[in-house]
Amino acid sequence: MARLSERLDNLHGSPVRAMLTAAQQPDMVSFAGGLPAPDSFADLSFPPAPLSAMQYGPTEGEPDLRARISVELACIGLDCPAHRIMVLSGSQQGIDLAAKLVIDAGAPIAVESPAYLAALQVFQFFGAQMSCLSPADPSAGWAEAPPRLAYVTPTFQNPTGRCWSGAERRALAQACDAHDVVLFEDDPYRDLAYDDCERTPVAAMVEQADWIYQGSFSKTVAPGLRLGFLAASEGVFEQLVHLKQAADLHTNRLSQFYVLHYLNDPGRAQRMGRLVNLYRERRDMFEAAMQHHLGGLADWSSPAGGLFFWAVLRGGLDAQALLPRAVARGVLFTPGVHFLVDSGAPSGAMRLNFSHADASAADRGLKVLGAVIREALG
Amino acid sequence: MARLSERLDNLHGSPVRAMLTAAQQPDMVSFAGGLPAPDSFADLSFPPAPLSAMQYGPTEGEPDLRARISVELACIGLDCPAHRIMVLSGSQQGIDLAAKLVIDAGAPIAVESPAYLAALQVFQFFGAQMSCLSPADPSAGWAEAPPRLAYVTPTFQNPTGRCWSGAERRALAQACDAHDVVLFEDDPYRDLAYDDCERTPVAAMVEQADWIYQGSFSKTVAPGLRLGFLAASEGVFEQLVHLKQAADLHTNRLSQFYVLHYLNDPGRAQRMGRLVNLYRERRDMFEAAMQHHLGGLADWSSPAGGLFFWAVLRGGLDAQALLPRAVARGVLFTPGVHFLVDSGAPSGAMRLNFSHADASAADRGLKVLGAVIREALG
Repeated sequence: MARLSERLDNLHGSPVRAMLTAAQQPDMVSFAGGLPAPDSFADLSFPPAPLSAMQYGPTEGEPDLRARISVELACIGLDCPAHRIMVLSGSQQGIDLAAKLVIDAGAPIAVESPAYLAALQVFQFFGAQMSCLSPADPSAGWAEAPPRLAYVTPTFQNPTGRCWSGAERRALAQACDAHDVVLFEDDPYRDLAYDDCERTPVAAMVEQADWIYQGSFSKTVAPGLRLGFLAASEGVFEQLVHLKQAADLHTNRLSQFYVLHYLNDPGRAQRMGRLVNLYRERRDMFEAAMQHHLGGLADWSSPAGGLFFWAVLRGGLDAQALLPRAVARGVLFTPGVHFLVDSGAPSGAMRLNFSHADASAADRGLKVLGAVIREALG
Repeated sequence: MARLSERLDNLHGSPVRAMLTAAQQPDMVSFAGGLPAPDSFADLSFPPAPLSAMQYGPTEGEPDLRARISVELACIGLDCPAHRIMVLSGSQQGIDLAAKLVIDAGAPIAVESPAYLAALQVFQFFGAQMSCLSPADPSAGWAEAPPRLAYVTPTFQNPTGRCWSGAERRALAQACDAHDVVLFEDDPYRDLAYDDCERTPVAAMVEQADWIYQGSFSKTVAPGLRLGFLAASEGVFEQLVHLKQAADLHTNRLSQFYVLHYLNDPGRAQRMGRLVNLYRERRDMFEAAMQHHLGGLADWSSPAGGLFFWAVLRGGLDAQALLPRAVARGVLFTPGVHFLVDSGAPSGAMRLNFSHADASAADRGLKVLGAVIREALG
């Protein structure tokens, strides 16, 4: 029996990834993942990559792509020079790097709850003590015991879809400054905005504290390319580069070439407009079907962006207990319990992805969920 | 001042990567990296990737690619079913995953010294206590204090170019079995074989112990694709998958598609033959130039494969002290000290890559090195 590291006791496979494997079955309706619509890839076009992309490249990423991302960030209000931008092998990697940067066993960090489950898993794996951060009072308890890091997804959060107000964003930035807490802002959904709302990065409002802001091209271009990026303050950037180097040397250069091509494509704005329209329509159709099949059984808010509904069942039902019955009838969803810091307690919430299934599949799936809930209520 | 993790005290950027940045200067002769010859990419051809490669994929990798790698491994004597093969974002990632799997702060592990410097850096970052493993007596000291893991590159090692004999390989496998030590075999150079020698994976000889065997497509296809793989014993495979999931969800699918295309290409054997011939010629020309310019100043063995000469300076010179003088005259090499477990002591060794520079650049660079060494000897 091999002796393995103690932190493996805190490692669990993602329940969503396990479900995605099940979702490969052809007639399964999956609301479980955060998968882009397959039709959204059809209008991507990529020229042949240059041979120079075959060689080893810089750890930080391709200079042209970093410069372009710097311009993009300036457009959304975040000033960060290209030399403090690093390309990532998807933004999941940024979570691994940030955890390595900050977390010793027992280190206190603050996270939203619910929050992105694969971030919670990484933080737990590295032994963090997680406390809950509420947008309404982000620094509650920080005067007594400041966390090292605050992990937030202020724009169209996964799983809730919530978007922080300007006042909430400023309060968090000020709290990070006042208590010297590293801000870690995860922003993969910001371009999937269906209604107006505040989207200025919190990182743009921080004045003294160190910060990491990360974005993803998985939702706007293609997740199969595994491409994300981070921007960071001077105090932590270089160490993040060393961590990236140790993790995988550098990000694959084909994807970097293709994403730069996409960012420079004159047809890009038009394509994004089509994508946002498609997803807005899906959200609206999905909500109509929810009202039809889940009305009176659950409560939810319509998300102004992103990819998910967060529905809370009435009647004290445990959503997780319903999952096997739903799967048996060909429908997958993600039980809310996986997104909670204290995942011991049952949760009546379910996360429902609306971007992947088409209207007819969504209607079929929600009908099954309604029936399963009604049966559980007796 | 942000509070960062204690393990960052053990994190240093790679001196090779820093030098590679310097090597971007057009007239610099670099013997420092492990870069494939740029001309080797010219005969790669890749068809357009299918749109399905744009979506999220399985953490373990594409099923077709894993099946194909399983067949390849069987051909070299290592039986491992496809369901215990995982595609990596380059084999540097496998080092990060193996370290997370096994290393707690203070955990004992055994490594060759010298060894691949970016592996030593990762092990040190996670807090391993490293002891030195010699092919001649691999389990020395293990009866008293068995390490958790033995990290070896038995075939054309980086930096020494050494290839373990069959008896040495069997002895290590038996030692891992006897002391329940996880074998971690890193095998990126095996296909770059210029002379006959034993190349059977040590992992194929292990009977009871857990093991991880990893390979790379960086040396045979293209490093810019960032593609490697690992095969592992049943006792550790699933946890490695969970670790991969937490690190970057899955490897980019374009590179997986292209590498599978390459592996299935009927022209592959012919292309590999050309590549091996090219590198064999470069090795031989490089050695002739070494004899001409460094004869009497350093000792080395001709490597039977891989990408490096390991030259040990005579006269007690410290190779690191010569580096600034060489760089000032347009030549880069990697001082041997970076590959040592105890990197406090000076080292008279230099690692010289022979695959990247062409004959004229190699001659020019070695002439400079010879002059720099003669000056240092007074």
